[in-house]
Amino acid sequence: MLISESKLRKFTLDIFMAMGCSEDHATLAADVLLRSDLRGIDSHGVARLSGYVRLWEKQRINTQPDIKIVHESYTTATIDGDAGLGLVVAPFAMQVAIQKAEKYGSGWVSVRNSNHFGIAGYHALMAVEQDMIGFAMTNASPLVAPTFSSERLLGTNPMCYAFPAGKYPPVVVDMATSAAANGKLEIAQRAGKQVPEGWLQDNAGNFTTDPFALKSGGALLPLGSDKEHGSHKGFGLSATVDILSGVLSGAGYGPWVPPFVAFLEPPANPPGKGIGHFLGAMRVDGFRPAEEYKADMDNWIARFKSAPTIDADKKVIIPGEPELEAEIDRIKNGIPLVDAVVNDLNELALKFGIDTL
Amino acid sequence: MLISESKLRKFTLDIFMAMGCSEDHATLAADVLLRSDLRGIDSHGVARLSGYVRLWEKQRINTQPDIKIVHESYTTATIDGDAGLGLVVAPFAMQVAIQKAEKYGSGWVSVRNSNHFGIAGYHALMAVEQDMIGFAMTNASPLVAPTFSSERLLGTNPMCYAFPAGKYPPVVVDMATSAAANGKLEIAQRAGKQVPEGWLQDNAGNFTTDPFALKSGGALLPLGSDKEHGSHKGFGLSATVDILSGVLSGAGYGPWVPPFVAFLEPPANPPGKGIGHFLGAMRVDGFRPAEEYKADMDNWIARFKSAPTIDADKKVIIPGEPELEAEIDRIKNGIPLVDAVVNDLNELALKFGIDTL
Repeated sequence: MLISESKLRKFTLDIFMAMGCSEDHATLAADVLLRSDLRGIDSHGVARLSGYVRLWEKQRINTQPDIKIVHESYTTATIDGDAGLGLVVAPFAMQVAIQKAEKYGSGWVSVRNSNHFGIAGYHALMAVEQDMIGFAMTNASPLVAPTFSSERLLGTNPMCYAFPAGKYPPVVVDMATSAAANGKLEIAQRAGKQVPEGWLQDNAGNFTTDPFALKSGGALLPLGSDKEHGSHKGFGLSATVDILSGVLSGAGYGPWVPPFVAFLEPPANPPGKGIGHFLGAMRVDGFRPAEEYKADMDNWIARFKSAPTIDADKKVIIPGEPELEAEIDRIKNGIPLVDAVVNDLNELALKFGIDTL
Repeated sequence: MLISESKLRKFTLDIFMAMGCSEDHATLAADVLLRSDLRGIDSHGVARLSGYVRLWEKQRINTQPDIKIVHESYTTATIDGDAGLGLVVAPFAMQVAIQKAEKYGSGWVSVRNSNHFGIAGYHALMAVEQDMIGFAMTNASPLVAPTFSSERLLGTNPMCYAFPAGKYPPVVVDMATSAAANGKLEIAQRAGKQVPEGWLQDNAGNFTTDPFALKSGGALLPLGSDKEHGSHKGFGLSATVDILSGVLSGAGYGPWVPPFVAFLEPPANPPGKGIGHFLGAMRVDGFRPAEEYKADMDNWIARFKSAPTIDADKKVIIPGEPELEAEIDRIKNGIPLVDAVVNDLNELALKFGIDTL
């Protein structure tokens, strides 16, 4: 079913308000989820709304959080999200980073005691709107095994780097640090298909193509898939995200990051609080005049877009381009939702006594 | 042949001084190269010394550079390396980043008009010594094709993140953003062996196992190897390094990064100057008390080190651990050099009239 952005946005806002969010927080949280659906990242949009509701029902999400800075310097800060929605906590933190960058050239904020923050690109793009380079990353519940290990110790820990350009749209590198994102497994599960070798290992640590392997003790693999192809690099990147988001802030890290799914209990005696994020902003004109930078950025994009391709039907994809194309299309034509998601959302509507889709 | 650190250091210092470096610069440049050899990264140490000499002979390296800040804010700066050795320019830039971080919590420096800076880890570890998190990256001559392209447009563009710990040594993630580093091809070439699928493509864009494929128009592949396994992520990381190092500073970028090998001429009409780097430092205590952070960092390391492994003989490798083990061993027992490198160095000695090894 195709649904208009405005209708889905209003619906999502109503659900967040029914959960007890203030109107401001509900508007912001809905904006983060809708941006994901608009940008074609269906796994991180309203498809997760019922997941947030279940965590709130278990009192693991606080919809009236007192988000505050607990430690800071001129250009750095740690924020405690008070178990709030990451969809609200992360934009708050990015705003602090941007304010510091406005004054001092750069700003960096580590966040603890938060929850899932949606797509990293949303937060990084807040900086881009101010002619800044944006950074956003988060740790997540453990699904990925380090190279040579059979244990899930890391999340798919995404990192995002977003760069303003001139006449071209921004370059947005927004990626899980695992070989494949969990959402791709779910697609294969629904379709009853095998997945490529190199995405997953079984509980003994062997490559498997069974998309259900995670449910029987398997693990996702770091970007690079195996040692010979650089999985230790994917592990290193994922570790970087975990340390900046979790260890630096005092959040949970490694196996102690609380699960997104409400049916799994958070680990006992965690060394830190909740999920951690790391956000940053740097003024472009802290390095050179913004117009000079943008002219070179446009030249960079144009040069890569015009690179010769291997197949006539495949062009070099500038990071962020497919998401922007989806956004333009879906704002105009509506957002496609699969039946399972529509049913899920309509159950929420019934639960909270609001109109179904 | 095994050679003592002190002898090789003195030899390297003498060569740099014979090239016209000041004693301070020669000492520093020798320290960066020796650190690489000590840490077991043989491809980036004295094996490259003759390469720097040939670039100097072609007047592409200036051994008496006037390195200066050309633009800055409280926490950001761009430095022009005046075509100096990256081995000297990058530590200068990192020192600026550290000084800014001391005052304001963080410091970020983009560098243009530089040359090859050795191992990224050297520079990032300068920050770690001050209880800061260190960042170091550089662009490099184009050898890597973006996903779907047959053209070499990016270097192996390494990124390094270095984190201080407490009782454990620092965690140092220092990695090329390609599936395999160029040095691994050279090893296969010397051994007359094929390389694994997923490292290289031929000039038509097909996977090849021929380690000489780069010499016939092929390209290295980004981390992830192919689209299905996330090569667009490796491309995105490499692009991030190129933009932060090249576009942000006004250095060359993409296909315009000048080649390290002196027999290839730099591209005509480049949009920027020389090679670019990006360096950063953040005070740990800008986020939380350093002792708290270090206790959690030690806990992180201990937890990952003790993870169950797939094979009894392979443990989870903490990033930076193998390099430190090599350093301890080689400081004590000497640095192994292959014959080709010894011959190369002895030719330099004859050229400059200093004692052979």
